[in-house]
Amino acid sequence: MSPLSSIAGDGPAPEHPAPGNPFGDRPVVRLKPKAEARAIRHGFPWVYADELVMDRRTGNIPPGALAVLEDGERRALGLVTVNVKSKIVARMLDRDPGAVVDEAWFAARLSRALELRARLHEAPFYRLVHAEADGLPGVVIDRFGDVAVVQPNAAWAEALLEPLVAALRAVTGVSTVIKNGTGRSRGLEGLAEETVVLCGGVAGPVAVPMNGATYMADVTGGQKTGLFYDQRPNHAFAARLAKGARVLDVFTHVGGFALAALAGGAESALAVDASAPALALAEAGARASGVADRFAVRQGDAFAVLEALAAEGERFDQVICDPPAFAPAKPALEAGLRAYERIARLAAPVVAPGGYLVLCSCSHAADLAAFRNASARGIGRGGRRGQLLHTGFAGADHPMLPQLAESGYLKSLFFRLD
Amino acid sequence: MSPLSSIAGDGPAPEHPAPGNPFGDRPVVRLKPKAEARAIRHGFPWVYADELVMDRRTGNIPPGALAVLEDGERRALGLVTVNVKSKIVARMLDRDPGAVVDEAWFAARLSRALELRARLHEAPFYRLVHAEADGLPGVVIDRFGDVAVVQPNAAWAEALLEPLVAALRAVTGVSTVIKNGTGRSRGLEGLAEETVVLCGGVAGPVAVPMNGATYMADVTGGQKTGLFYDQRPNHAFAARLAKGARVLDVFTHVGGFALAALAGGAESALAVDASAPALALAEAGARASGVADRFAVRQGDAFAVLEALAAEGERFDQVICDPPAFAPAKPALEAGLRAYERIARLAAPVVAPGGYLVLCSCSHAADLAAFRNASARGIGRGGRRGQLLHTGFAGADHPMLPQLAESGYLKSLFFRLD
Repeated sequence: MSPLSSIAGDGPAPEHPAPGNPFGDRPVVRLKPKAEARAIRHGFPWVYADELVMDRRTGNIPPGALAVLEDGERRALGLVTVNVKSKIVARMLDRDPGAVVDEAWFAARLSRALELRARLHEAPFYRLVHAEADGLPGVVIDRFGDVAVVQPNAAWAEALLEPLVAALRAVTGVSTVIKNGTGRSRGLEGLAEETVVLCGGVAGPVAVPMNGATYMADVTGGQKTGLFYDQRPNHAFAARLAKGARVLDVFTHVGGFALAALAGGAESALAVDASAPALALAEAGARASGVADRFAVRQGDAFAVLEALAAEGERFDQVICDPPAFAPAKPALEAGLRAYERIARLAAPVVAPGGYLVLCSCSHAADLAAFRNASARGIGRGGRRGQLLHTGFAGADHPMLPQLAESGYLKSLFFRLD
Repeated sequence: MSPLSSIAGDGPAPEHPAPGNPFGDRPVVRLKPKAEARAIRHGFPWVYADELVMDRRTGNIPPGALAVLEDGERRALGLVTVNVKSKIVARMLDRDPGAVVDEAWFAARLSRALELRARLHEAPFYRLVHAEADGLPGVVIDRFGDVAVVQPNAAWAEALLEPLVAALRAVTGVSTVIKNGTGRSRGLEGLAEETVVLCGGVAGPVAVPMNGATYMADVTGGQKTGLFYDQRPNHAFAARLAKGARVLDVFTHVGGFALAALAGGAESALAVDASAPALALAEAGARASGVADRFAVRQGDAFAVLEALAAEGERFDQVICDPPAFAPAKPALEAGLRAYERIARLAAPVVAPGGYLVLCSCSHAADLAAFRNASARGIGRGGRRGQLLHTGFAGADHPMLPQLAESGYLKSLFFRLD
C-alpha cells in the first residue's frame, strides 16, 4: 500500500505549443492510399497495421504516443494513440486532431461515462469506463463506492495515468484508486504486470450491494478488478426464476448467481469453484447477505463436480454454469465450443424435470449462434430437451461501439428443460 | 358476439381404438431414405416438403390431420400434424407416436406453459402459449386477466379447437375466450379469416397493467391479439433511461414505450402512429395510467413526422422507433434494411445531445447483425455517433426452441448518441 498522492496533479493543464504546424510537434501517421477511411469517418475506432504507411518515422514512434491520423490525401481524421508493435496500430482518441489530452479532457470523458451509470444505478457500484465505447481505448475502470480500480491496458493510458487519475478523483469523488495491471493485453503493449494502490487505501474486501445481495470484492488481489459487474442483469433474471428453488452455481467465483438467487428467495444454493480464496469470499458474501444458512460451497473442478453430482443422484431446480472464457480467441474456437458443449452435456442431467439451465460464455471468439448451437447440442446429448427463454448480454454499464460488434463478448442463455 | 358454449366439451375424452396396428387407424408418413432424422430426434420440430415421401396416400391426408412420422427405416419418430399444401409439411406434436390429443393432452401442455408465466409475472397478463416452443405448433394464446385470445394459425389447431379451449378454461379459469383468426399464416393453411367470441364476452377494451402503466387492449378488433406483450422488458429498460426525459415514441400503437416511460418518470411523451383507433386507445391508456397531462399524440406517417419534427427544431431526450416488420420474409430483406436505415437516419437528428435512441425490428428475415449494421449506418448518415448500451429480445413469455433460432424475431437496440 503506497499512496502516490503526488500524481493527483491539481495544477493547471500543460500547454501544448503549436509552432509552425497546426498540431504542434505531434507526429503524423498516414493511411495507405488504398486504405478505406470511410469506416473511420463513420466511427470505427481502430487502424490495423496493414492499413498504415509504415515508414521509418512512424516505426520510431514510441508505444502509446499520440499522433495525428491522416487519410491518403493528407486530410486529418483525428488524434490517435499509436503502438507500432500492436496489430491495432492506432486507436482513435479524439475526432479533433488538435485535442489536448489533459485532466480536463479526461474529466469530460469521465463525466459522460458517469452520467449514464448514475442514470442506470442507484448506488455507485458499476463499471464506470468500458474502454473504446466510453472514448478511452484500452481503459477499464470499475467503481466500488468510494474505491475505483483502474486497468490501464494500453500504453497511452499508462503514460497518461496521472491526469486520468486526477480527473477520476475530481469527477467521482472516490478517495481510493487502485491500478490493476494484470490485464492480458498489457503484455502485448509492453507493460509490466503490477497492482498498486495509487491513493487512499483499503482494508480487506469491499462490500458491494447488487441485486439485493452483498458481494465481497477483493479489489487488490482478486481476478480482474475483483468483481464481475457484467453479469448483473443475468443474475437478476436468474433470481426471478429461482424462488423456492434448489440452485447449483458452477464457476460461482465470489458467489455470482448463487447469492442473487438466495436474495431472490431460493431455498438453497450450492456454489462450486476451483478457487478456495473465491469460495471464501463467496461465504463472506453469504454471511453479509444474511443467507449463510441456505448457502454451501464445494471446491473442485467443475466438470468433475458435475459428474459426481449426477452420480450421487443430486437434482437442482436451477443450474448455472458461468465458466471462464473457453474460446478467448479464434485459434481456441473449436476446442472452446467442445468445452461449452461438454459443460451443457454434464449439467443437463442434474437439472430437475421442468427446471432451468443457465449457460454462459464470455468468449469473444464464440459468437451467439455458435455458443447457442453448442449449448443445444450438449443439452441434447445430455438426454434432455428444452425451451430457450431468454438471451442476456453484459449490463448496460458495459456499452460497446456498434462498429465493434465483437466486443459483445458475454452471452447468457436461459433454458427450461423438459 | 356469439358465445359458443357448446364447444366447452366437459365430457370424457374420446377413445382412440387401436385395432391391428399400434397407432390405430392413424395415417403414417415417412421420411425419404436420405433425409436426416437426427435433427428431428434432437428436437427439431419441422419436416420440410422435400424430406417426405410424397405418395398418393400421403398426398390425400387432409390438412391438419394427425399422422405417425417414421424415419427411412420405418422407426416411429413421433406424432405429427400434416399439411401437404405447406412448405412445412409436418410439425411434431408429440414424441409419443401413440399420444392421444384430447383435452387432457392440451391441459398438460397448457399447465406447463402456465407454470413458467406464473413464475415470471405477478399478474395474469402475458403470452401464455408461444407456438412450437410451448409444444403447440402454430398456436398463440395471449392472456388478459380473465380473457384469453387464441390464434389457431394452423389447420390441426382449428380442427381441435374444442378440446383446446376446454383445457384452456379448465387450466387458467378464464371466463372469456376469443378466437382471433387474422394471422397471416392462416391463409397458407387454408383457414378463413374470422374473429369470434367463443365463450363469455367483453365490453370494450381490456385494461392491462404492465411496467407500472395501464394499457387498453382491443381484444376483438385490434392488431394481432390486441396488445404486444413481447416488448415488455424493452419498455422497462427504456423507462429506466427516461426519468425526467422528453420522450418521442414513433409507431406507438396503443402507447407501448410512451406509457411505460411516463410511468417511469418521463417529463413528457409524444406518441406517433398512423392509426387513429390505436392512438385513441393510447390516450385512454394515458388516462387510466394517470399520466394524460404529460401525454400527447400526433397522427401521421412516421417518416413524414420525423422529418417535420426535425424541421421544426424539436429535440427529445429519448426517441423510440418500433415499426411494423419491414422485412417479414427473405424477399423483402434488402428493402427492409433500407427502411430500417432510413428510420435511424431520420430519428437520429431529433435526439438531443447525450440522449437515447431505441430502434426496434420485429422482422424475422433481418437478423441481429444485419439490423444493427443498418441502424448504425443510419445513425452515421444522420450525422451522429453513439454507443450501443443494450440489446433486448422478446420477453421470456415468448420462448423459442433453440433449434429454431429464426424465431428470435424481435430485436431492440438501445443507443446513446453523442
